[in-house]
This record gives sequence, C-alpha cells and structure tokens, in this order.
Amino acid sequence: MKFLAHINVMPKAELLDPQGKVVVKNLPNIGIDGVDDVRIGKHVTISLFAKNPKEANKKVEAACKKLLANVIMESYDFVIEEVE
Amino acid sequence: MKFLAHINVMPKAELLDPQGKVVVKNLPNIGIDGVDDVRIGKHVTISLFAKNPKEANKKVEAACKKLLANVIMESYDFVIEEVE
Repeated sequence: MKFLAHINVMPKAELLDPQGKVVVKNLPNIGIDGVDDVRIGKHVTISLFAKNPKEANKKVEAACKKLLANVIMESYDFVIEEVE
Repeated sequence: MKFLAHINVMPKAELLDPQGKVVVKNLPNIGIDGVDDVRIGKHVTISLFAKNPKEANKKVEAACKKLLANVIMESYDFVIEEVE
C-alpha cells in the first residue's frame, strides 16, 4: 500500500522564532496590518510504501524523530493518507 | 475578529527539490525503507485580526504572494480558522 504523509515541523511555542518576528515586523511595510504573530517551520511530504497504516505511521514517526525534527527545539505533527 | 492561518509553501511539483532528495537517499541508513519521494517546504502560521473571513483571506493571500512564497518556484495553499 502506498501512503502520503503530510508533516509539519514547528519551533516549539515557548521558543523565540526570529524568522517569524521579522515577518511580523515587515508585513505593515507591504500594506498588510493586523498581524500579531507569525511562526515559520517546515512542511514535509513523504511518499512511502508500507504494509498497512500502522506500519506507515511507525515509519513516519521514526523519520520525524531521527531526521526531520530537532525534538529539543521543534515539535511535529503529521497526517497520513492512503493514496493507492 | 481574530484568525489563524495555516500556510504551506512548497517547491513546485515540476522542480527538483534537492533537500528532499537527500532525505530520500538517507532514510534507509537510519533504518527507514520504502520511501520514494520527499518534498520539503515551509509551514507558516499567521495570527491576525480582520473584520471578517473575506478580509482575513485577502491579507493572507497578499502575505503569501508578496513575502512568503517565491511564486516562480513555489506554490502555496492555506486554510484560515477563526479563533476568537
């Protein structure tokens, strides 16, 4: 079975996100006001084969923990859909 | 009204994503097989005030086009939820 995982990796809420702060500060300069917070992280899509949804979930969880997210500073969440 | 926008900015499908390719190549080394494609982009959350959902949508669309996405190489999509 083939699956597609949609993963979001974000800086943890209690940490500063300097890149996001810069965007907040600059949006008024391009005519966009009313924005009080911006946080910027990664969006990763993984296309993978697995025997069943449980195995797919296990693989994606491992990929997040071991490679995609720095769990000290980032949190992640994902959804998995079956595509074939 | 306060809104929270969840934006994904991804490299366009027809373009190479070298960062994603490196992840595909390295996942087997950490014991994760069966992955045939990985694409890496940005996930941005924007918290903003607007008079109504339509105005919120317009602001987020403008932020994406003018600042967050390079529309030559990246595509974006977003969902907006009302939070207050």
